Amino acid sequence: MHIKPQIKETIPEPTLRRLPWYLAFVSLLNRRGIANVSSTRIAEELHVDASQIAKDLSFLNIRGKTRIGYDVATLEHQLVEFLGFKQLHNAVVIGAGSLGAALMRDSGLSQYGLNIMAGFDIDPAKIGQKIGDTVINHIDELADIARDRNVRVAILTVPFECAQNMADKCAEAGIEAIWNFTPSRISTSGNTVIQNTSIYSDLAVMFHHMQPTNENQPQ
Amino acid sequence: MHIKPQIKETIPEPTLRRLPWYLAFVSLLNRRGIANVSSTRIAEELHVDASQIAKDLSFLNIRGKTRIGYDVATLEHQLVEFLGFKQLHNAVVIGAGSLGAALMRDSGLSQYGLNIMAGFDIDPAKIGQKIGDTVINHIDELADIARDRNVRVAILTVPFECAQNMADKCAEAGIEAIWNFTPSRISTSGNTVIQNTSIYSDLAVMFHHMQPTNENQPQ
Repeated sequence: MHIKPQIKETIPEPTLRRLPWYLAFVSLLNRRGIANVSSTRIAEELHVDASQIAKDLSFLNIRGKTRIGYDVATLEHQLVEFLGFKQLHNAVVIGAGSLGAALMRDSGLSQYGLNIMAGFDIDPAKIGQKIGDTVINHIDELADIARDRNVRVAILTVPFECAQNMADKCAEAGIEAIWNFTPSRISTSGNTVIQNTSIYSDLAVMFHHMQPTNENQPQ
Repeated sequence: MHIKPQIKETIPEPTLRRLPWYLAFVSLLNRRGIANVSSTRIAEELHVDASQIAKDLSFLNIRGKTRIGYDVATLEHQLVEFLGFKQLHNAVVIGAGSLGAALMRDSGLSQYGLNIMAGFDIDPAKIGQKIGDTVINHIDELADIARDRNVRVAILTVPFECAQNMADKCAEAGIEAIWNFTPSRISTSGNTVIQNTSIYSDLAVMFHHMQPTNENQPQ
C-alpha cells in the first residue's frame, strides 16, 4: 500500500522540511553499514530535539523499537519513497541566464528526483545551443515539448519582469509545478503548484547578521 | 548617517526576506523611468498586503508621501544599501562538486554582493583546476587564503559527512559567515553566522504538493 495519499494533507510543512536532513544522515549510516540508529543519535547529529524526530517520523507511520531504534536501511527506503526523490520528475529550466545555466549543469539534482531535459530562452543567440547536456529551445516551443515529453516541473530562472508571463505559459502548457527562483511572487489562475526558493532573501538575512563593512558604507 | 546599526536587532526576519522582492520591482520601475510608486501598486505586483509593505519599509525609516507614494530611485537606493547587496563580500566555495561548480559559474551572485574568489576541495584531480574563472585550492590552504584575501563568506556545498568538519575549518579560518547548502545542520562554537538554504527541503515540499506519479510507486 502506498502511504502517501492518507497523510498527504496532514503532515506539517516544518516536518516535511526536516525529512531530507534525516534522509541525508541515514543514507550515510547505511553506506557505512550501520544497522540501527536511535532518535537520540539522529538528534545529536542534526541538532534537532529527539522527541521532535520521533514525532516527525510517526507522521510517516515509522516507529523505532525500544533499545534498538530505527532500522537504517528501512528508514532510508521509506524516507526516499515518501519524499519523491526516487521517481524522476521530468523538468525544464526557463531562462538560460547565469543561475539557469548553473542549475542545468548541476547533475546532482537528478539524485533528488529532477530530470532536467530541456532549457528555454528567448535570446536567439542561445536557441539551439547546449548548456552541459541540455539543449536550449525557444519559449514558443514550451507547450509542444512539455506535452510530448511529459514535463511536470518548470524551474523558473528568468529576470523579474518576465517571471509572471513565463509562469502563465507554464500553466497553459499543463506543467504541474513551478520551482520559482526569481524574486517575483508569481501566481497562476489554475492549480499549479508554486514553490519559491528565495536565495536572495537568504543572502539578505545572512548579510544582516554579519558585521557591517567599514568601506563603501554611506556616512 | 548609516541607518543599519539602530535597527539591526529590531527588524523581523519575514520583513527582511520580503525586502529583496520590493527591490527587484522598484529596480525594474527605475529602469523604466517611473518616478513614483504607491504601496498599493507594489502590493498588486507582489501579492503582498499594501499595509504590510508600508510597515516593512517603515522599519528602514522609509515613508511614502500621500497621493504620490515612494520615490522610486530613492527607494531602490535605500533598499540596496540596507540589504548589503552593494558592497562586495569576498566569498569562497567549499566543495567543487556539481552544486559548488554551478555556484562558481553563476556570475549573477556578484550583483547581490558576493564576490566568489576561490574554490576549495580535497580531490587531487580538482586542485589547481579552474571552474569558470575560479581556481580550486586544497582545503588545507583555506586559513591562509582566507586571511590574505579577506574572505568573509564560505559557501558550503560538500557532502553531508564533511559538512561539520568543513564548517569548523571555516570558523577556525576566521570566516564570518557560512552559507550552508548541505542537508547537515552545522553548528560552530564561535559566533559564526550560519545561513541555511535547503533546496532539497523546497523540492520535498514541491513534490509533496504534486500529484503522485503512477509509475515506479510502491503498491
